[in-house]
Amino acid sequence: MPTDHLYDRGRGQRIGLDEAVFCLSKTPQQIADILAHARAEGRRMLLTRLDPEKAASLTTDASMALDYDPESHTGILGAAAPMRRHKGVAIVTAGTSDSAVAREAARTLAYYGLPSEPFADLGVAGLWRLLERREAIAAYPIVIAVAGMEGALFSVLAGLIGSVLIAVPTSHGYGVSAAGRTALQAALGGCAPGVLTVNIDNGYGAACASLRMLRAFGAGGG
Amino acid sequence: MPTDHLYDRGRGQRIGLDEAVFCLSKTPQQIADILAHARAEGRRMLLTRLDPEKAASLTTDASMALDYDPESHTGILGAAAPMRRHKGVAIVTAGTSDSAVAREAARTLAYYGLPSEPFADLGVAGLWRLLERREAIAAYPIVIAVAGMEGALFSVLAGLIGSVLIAVPTSHGYGVSAAGRTALQAALGGCAPGVLTVNIDNGYGAACASLRMLRAFGAGGG
Amino acid sequence: MPTDHLYDRGRGQRIGLDEAVFCLSKTPQQIADILAHARAEGRRMLLTRLDPEKAASLTTDASMALDYDPESHTGILGAAAPMRRHKGVAIVTAGTSDSAVAREAARTLAYYGLPSEPFADLGVAGLWRLLERREAIAAYPIVIAVAGMEGALFSVLAGLIGSVLIAVPTSHGYGVSAAGRTALQAALGGCAPGVLTVNIDNGYGAACASLRMLRAFGAGGG
Amino acid sequence: MPTDHLYDRGRGQRIGLDEAVFCLSKTPQQIADILAHARAEGRRMLLTRLDPEKAASLTTDASMALDYDPESHTGILGAAAPMRRHKGVAIVTAGTSDSAVAREAARTLAYYGLPSEPFADLGVAGLWRLLERREAIAAYPIVIAVAGMEGALFSVLAGLIGSVLIAVPTSHGYGVSAAGRTALQAALGGCAPGVLTVNIDNGYGAACASLRMLRAFGAGGG
Amino acid sequence: MPTDHLYDRGRGQRIGLDEAVFCLSKTPQQIADILAHARAEGRRMLLTRLDPEKAASLTTDASMALDYDPESHTGILGAAAPMRRHKGVAIVTAGTSDSAVAREAARTLAYYGLPSEPFADLGVAGLWRLLERREAIAAYPIVIAVAGMEGALFSVLAGLIGSVLIAVPTSHGYGVSAAGRTALQAALGGCAPGVLTVNIDNGYGAACASLRMLRAFGAGGG
Amino acid sequence: MPTDHLYDRGRGQRIGLDEAVFCLSKTPQQIADILAHARAEGRRMLLTRLDPEKAASLTTDASMALDYDPESHTGILGAAAPMRRHKGVAIVTAGTSDSAVAREAARTLAYYGLPSEPFADLGVAGLWRLLERREAIAAYPIVIAVAGMEGALFSVLAGLIGSVLIAVPTSHGYGVSAAGRTALQAALGGCAPGVLTVNIDNGYGAACASLRMLRAFGAGGG
Amino acid sequence: MPTDHLYDRGRGQRIGLDEAVFCLSKTPQQIADILAHARAEGRRMLLTRLDPEKAASLTTDASMALDYDPESHTGILGAAAPMRRHKGVAIVTAGTSDSAVAREAARTLAYYGLPSEPFADLGVAGLWRLLERREAIAAYPIVIAVAGMEGALFSVLAGLIGSVLIAVPTSHGYGVSAAGRTALQAALGGCAPGVLTVNIDNGYGAACASLRMLRAFGAGGG
Amino acid sequence: MPTDHLYDRGRGQRIGLDEAVFCLSKTPQQIADILAHARAEGRRMLLTRLDPEKAASLTTDASMALDYDPESHTGILGAAAPMRRHKGVAIVTAGTSDSAVAREAARTLAYYGLPSEPFADLGVAGLWRLLERREAIAAYPIVIAVAGMEGALFSVLAGLIGSVLIAVPTSHGYGVSAAGRTALQAALGGCAPGVLTVNIDNGYGAACASLRMLRAFGAGGG
Repeated sequence: MPTDHLYDRGRGQRIGLDEAVFCLSKTPQQIADILAHARAEGRRMLLTRLDPEKAASLTTDASMALDYDPESHTGILGAAAPMRRHKGVAIVTAGTSDSAVAREAARTLAYYGLPSEPFADLGVAGLWRLLERREAIAAYPIVIAVAGMEGALFSVLAGLIGSVLIAVPTSHGYGVSAAGRTALQAALGGCAPGVLTVNIDNGYGAACASLRMLRAFGAGGG
Repeated sequence: MPTDHLYDRGRGQRIGLDEAVFCLSKTPQQIADILAHARAEGRRMLLTRLDPEKAASLTTDASMALDYDPESHTGILGAAAPMRRHKGVAIVTAGTSDSAVAREAARTLAYYGLPSEPFADLGVAGLWRLLERREAIAAYPIVIAVAGMEGALFSVLAGLIGSVLIAVPTSHGYGVSAAGRTALQAALGGCAPGVLTVNIDNGYGAACASLRMLRAFGAGGG
Repeated sequence: MPTDHLYDRGRGQRIGLDEAVFCLSKTPQQIADILAHARAEGRRMLLTRLDPEKAASLTTDASMALDYDPESHTGILGAAAPMRRHKGVAIVTAGTSDSAVAREAARTLAYYGLPSEPFADLGVAGLWRLLERREAIAAYPIVIAVAGMEGALFSVLAGLIGSVLIAVPTSHGYGVSAAGRTALQAALGGCAPGVLTVNIDNGYGAACASLRMLRAFGAGGG
Repeated sequence: MPTDHLYDRGRGQRIGLDEAVFCLSKTPQQIADILAHARAEGRRMLLTRLDPEKAASLTTDASMALDYDPESHTGILGAAAPMRRHKGVAIVTAGTSDSAVAREAARTLAYYGLPSEPFADLGVAGLWRLLERREAIAAYPIVIAVAGMEGALFSVLAGLIGSVLIAVPTSHGYGVSAAGRTALQAALGGCAPGVLTVNIDNGYGAACASLRMLRAFGAGGG
Repeated sequence: MPTDHLYDRGRGQRIGLDEAVFCLSKTPQQIADILAHARAEGRRMLLTRLDPEKAASLTTDASMALDYDPESHTGILGAAAPMRRHKGVAIVTAGTSDSAVAREAARTLAYYGLPSEPFADLGVAGLWRLLERREAIAAYPIVIAVAGMEGALFSVLAGLIGSVLIAVPTSHGYGVSAAGRTALQAALGGCAPGVLTVNIDNGYGAACASLRMLRAFGAGGG
Repeated sequence: MPTDHLYDRGRGQRIGLDEAVFCLSKTPQQIADILAHARAEGRRMLLTRLDPEKAASLTTDASMALDYDPESHTGILGAAAPMRRHKGVAIVTAGTSDSAVAREAARTLAYYGLPSEPFADLGVAGLWRLLERREAIAAYPIVIAVAGMEGALFSVLAGLIGSVLIAVPTSHGYGVSAAGRTALQAALGGCAPGVLTVNIDNGYGAACASLRMLRAFGAGGG
Repeated sequence: MPTDHLYDRGRGQRIGLDEAVFCLSKTPQQIADILAHARAEGRRMLLTRLDPEKAASLTTDASMALDYDPESHTGILGAAAPMRRHKGVAIVTAGTSDSAVAREAARTLAYYGLPSEPFADLGVAGLWRLLERREAIAAYPIVIAVAGMEGALFSVLAGLIGSVLIAVPTSHGYGVSAAGRTALQAALGGCAPGVLTVNIDNGYGAACASLRMLRAFGAGGG
Repeated sequence: MPTDHLYDRGRGQRIGLDEAVFCLSKTPQQIADILAHARAEGRRMLLTRLDPEKAASLTTDASMALDYDPESHTGILGAAAPMRRHKGVAIVTAGTSDSAVAREAARTLAYYGLPSEPFADLGVAGLWRLLERREAIAAYPIVIAVAGMEGALFSVLAGLIGSVLIAVPTSHGYGVSAAGRTALQAALGGCAPGVLTVNIDNGYGAACASLRMLRAFGAGGG
């Protein structure tokens, strides 16, 4: 099968995570081929960075079966995973602009059967709202925080809760905040101890790291 | 007088601020000459960025008369200014490493007779301490906030108080926070409206901006 | 109301500024929903970074009622604020390319009932024009200076007037001046004391800072 | 007590981590004062970024009692913590130059009673050595990987093991690798899913993140 | 002939490489003129960075005769070169996104009659696949490695084989990996000795360097 | 003579400028050898970037004959050039910190027999002083402007005079102005037409460019 | 006249150069208004950065009279200037991609009646061509060199000729050469003395600097 | 043996290159231990980046036996390798400042028994000297070019000779050329085809790449 090398089917056993199909730099034909093979073998599959135009151009049977989410640019092929009996992950966002990235994380977790709860619009400019939700957030073992601009949410949250905190800087903003560099540096260089970071806009990576934790600690029935 | 051009004595009338002597790139001899002339004419004078070694190497009479502060690297020549009857400026610092810059601001204000009150160690990693002092800080019309690392203090404070807020990013920190760039970008690109910024470590500039405000609004008996 | 979290209605009391709706990263549907709720509650509202295409795509009743300005990409919902009896703010621009940002500042001030006066095309390449207007500008307590390219206007103006000076670097220019970095650094690193800076193209932020000043000093009947 | 504000004693309850004393920007006198107070109250304390010269200049009784490690620039005041009955954390280094940072992580873990095991000199240029140790490393739920230069170790390790992986880029290297930027970007932008990152040279931060995990998942008797 | 200067026909003798026509910044008319002249003189010619739109807009006879490859954006005018009796070059790619650049290298080699063999999808996240192909790759005297993101493939491969290794960083990736800078720095700053690098996405340059080697060492019947 | 290759004696004829000896990266022994050979041949010679420590370590006869200037770090071997009957070059500096670089330019001009006149401390923060000297400066065909920090002097001067204007950015300043990048970008990206730029701190280069002009236009009896 | 401030008509007297109309950030309406006023007053005018789309959208009478050049994006309103009796300026380009910028320089010179001669495709990869033209180039008092990519042409040319040399880095290239930064740094940091530089792609600026020279030295009948 | 892991003795077989000891980040004690072990086993060894101070502090027997070269900061332990019967490598330098890096390359080659010939001071500012040596250089199959500042030598040389060309950018220079970034980018982004690059100042890497070539092509009796 010529496209066989496009998908690493053995990874699941090695590190507990299937390989997602990163669609940003793949042609519609390449994606359609991958989907057709996966479907023929009855395998489930997660696709990321699949924008609506490219998704609309997929017209094969397998593509038609795709559970596609236009906000997060993700697609899931195959049956929904049974939700594990686990509290899951809290996903805190600073503003509306962070919701697409947050949803990429939530969809990735759901693909592996892990629930998540969104805590939206808790940016530090409106600190009281964040303080009101503090206890609810702190009840989760893992918190994914998604923020752009100056990324102050990461340090503030890290000083308020003892959970594992994964920062996802986002690329919205303008001027010095453009492209997410300021938020990324804030996540890395903050004053509160123990914040962990992934690449800009990488909701998928934050979810994968969460899944590694649950697997490592035998939690969530994973 | 050959060194006469080194000091712009007419500026006070034009913009309400004397020219401070920025010592970083001046030789001890140049500084001593400036001091001698100022003393001969009975003028007061503020010196900034005068490090202890250079200060110690000044041995003329005028230099001996200098009120030198080793923490902030500032020196004041001449009589202390009478303190104005004005509440003055609140100077909030995130951590111990920010105190030298905060003190440069305080000394500059004092040179012009304006009081200031320090609010120390209110970094966002210990958010409760900041919240406890919120009302006391908010009572000041002007707040200078001094912070390095990720500079989250600027956005948090801007969301908590309605005062004028001048952010002074500081150059301490390491890795991505080194040299103050992250804190500077956080001050500029933050999510809370109306934060004003000066150059990294520029406590003197924040004080000068405060003095412009007091002059512009006829406040403080300036 | 599900979109209620998209708008922080309590901020006005806390810091004296409503939350503006930053439209750059919001969908037309989200903006339309926010406008509909605000109108239903009879609240006034300021929208920024709303480009003409997105503005044209808003077709609900509330959107129709929007006072939209295509140059500054701002929209105002609700009755015009009564103009305060205050001299207001001088807004100085270096060139034609700076006028959209200047207008964002002027519209924000107007939303809060504060007048402003534009001083256009006073870039330093034509220094005499600037010198001719110096006294008129210096009569304002607050001066917002808007300039791109090398941003020399900020230092020159700061040496000429004693008013509060807020620099807004703009992103026009090319080569080394592209994206506004040179103008921003000039504003921060200039030789004249007491210049305050906001993010690149952030006319809204400069206006908000002005409003903080007027509130702090009890000026303008605010 | 005037220096009381220099140390946030309440943090332990809030987030499960005491505040470490970051000595880089503190004077010997400030450090000595903090140590004296802690000792008087019988509190334990962790100090980081305390270089040998500064450590040697501390001559008070409390300082004498410090368990100081010159390689990692850390000091521990007070009794050793009883080691928890937990497998602990694997700390993998690419080369000799990474050992000081690795040791900062190990000392921080030990301060909280958590064991760690070093896996040294496993850089990818000698891939067989890394492959030989793969199973031993994979047996740990948490792996801290410490590497400078091009940071290829992070991606390689993430593809080999399913444990939680925390990357600590280090600042050694020269030319394009100087200051750790390349290693940091490799950690963030790698091709293997679920790598988590902290600031350059931040062994302390990686340890704190590990402690958050153990606390969140109730592991290690923490 | 007015466009004669557009093409350096004497270079072949000097350095053993014809000048390729870099089409990125040439107009269709300029390209068509160059092709017409070359065809009239019976010369062969290689074109690079000719995107499909521009290629489609070429409608002269000479253009029609072009052997155009849309994936690599290359065109070859004239008869195919006879393949030399030489093992040729191994071209290893990390992922699907690297194949266009790899193909630019392969097409350039083929233009000069040198065979190449692709080794696809051997990124380090799936290390076993790379290890399985190690001996086959090591059998080639020259290996061109093409990778984006964090570029870990370069160091890993350099530690596994003794062949000449030419790294071609690619510009795909996002966040800190965008535009290929991280992969480039990894190629330059890696820990394995003797890796050689060319510009980002420069498959053509890697092929030219290979051709220099074969010529210098009298290999391949060149 | 083994060190013969260290000095290009034929350049004078080719481009009208001798090769200066750039001492920054040469050892005292190498410099002493070059001086000895030049003296033996009776040649004149200009040395740049020779700091006082290195100059003091030169103890040969030829070195003793050196006309060394510690402020500009330049040395001249051989007889003084007869001053040409030409008005020469105006050298304008913004502040005291710029005088060493200005003097490097003046010494280079003097080495070739060209006079120069310093116009000191004319930074734009004190604009009136600059305006007072405008006519005197404008009388020179060539003006070298030396400034650090935000480099506003370049644009202001270019708008005031019609002379050739060569900008020399200097590396003093701190924060965003550190290392001269902001001043350099201001020189390149300014709004006034026809400003020419050389490298940061390159007074020697500005002088050489002036000498090219005088030679090209047959001016100054050169 | 409301748009009167858009054009500085007094500059010609001050510095010998009219103000060109920089069209990049002006609307078609603004440009049309400026043209109409200039025509009504019988003034000549130079427009730069006027792209073909914007030029085509200008439909007033004055716009119709514009001498527009689509390659250089320049327009000239009014009668052609009589060519001065002066050898003029040599304009050397490295490759085809540099010709648009070279032509902006040539058109600016022509606007002021100064001839120029193009020396095309003399990049250093084909050094012999450059050497063949050396004497012809060296005969010009002023040489404008236009090059992108690595900008080696600037240093090579400066070592070959004694004329005034103005480097114009161009923004074509890819990878590390993208946007012209490498060529700019090569122009500034080269090893040959006396190279002068303007902003990336700034052919207009190089021409203005040439005109300053001719005016300053009384050459060209200017 | 506890320090056994500090040195990878198996690498020679795998890739044909022993592991050199990179001393920059090793303590004198670590280096002395490595030397002692190697000597005890009768192994030869190459040390790089060993500065004179650290070298002088090595006082064990093995250290005494070291063939140390202070210019290149390299040391060789063990008998000199017999020189192979091979023409070897040409090493071209632009200026005196590049000689230390060139010598690191030459010493590395000599360690493996490969001769090299230096071609010194052939920077492009004195192009005739380079042209005079062209044929002599072109006679070598491999040419290592070492240059700092603007790195124009790389492109010029690549256009003149057909040999394999390895560029080593060096870190000398100032202003925009500081730290070698401009020379590196010139090597990567140049206009002549087939230039290969290594990290800044990496003479060792260029030599290792040369050794890979000789091994791959069975040349030099290696």
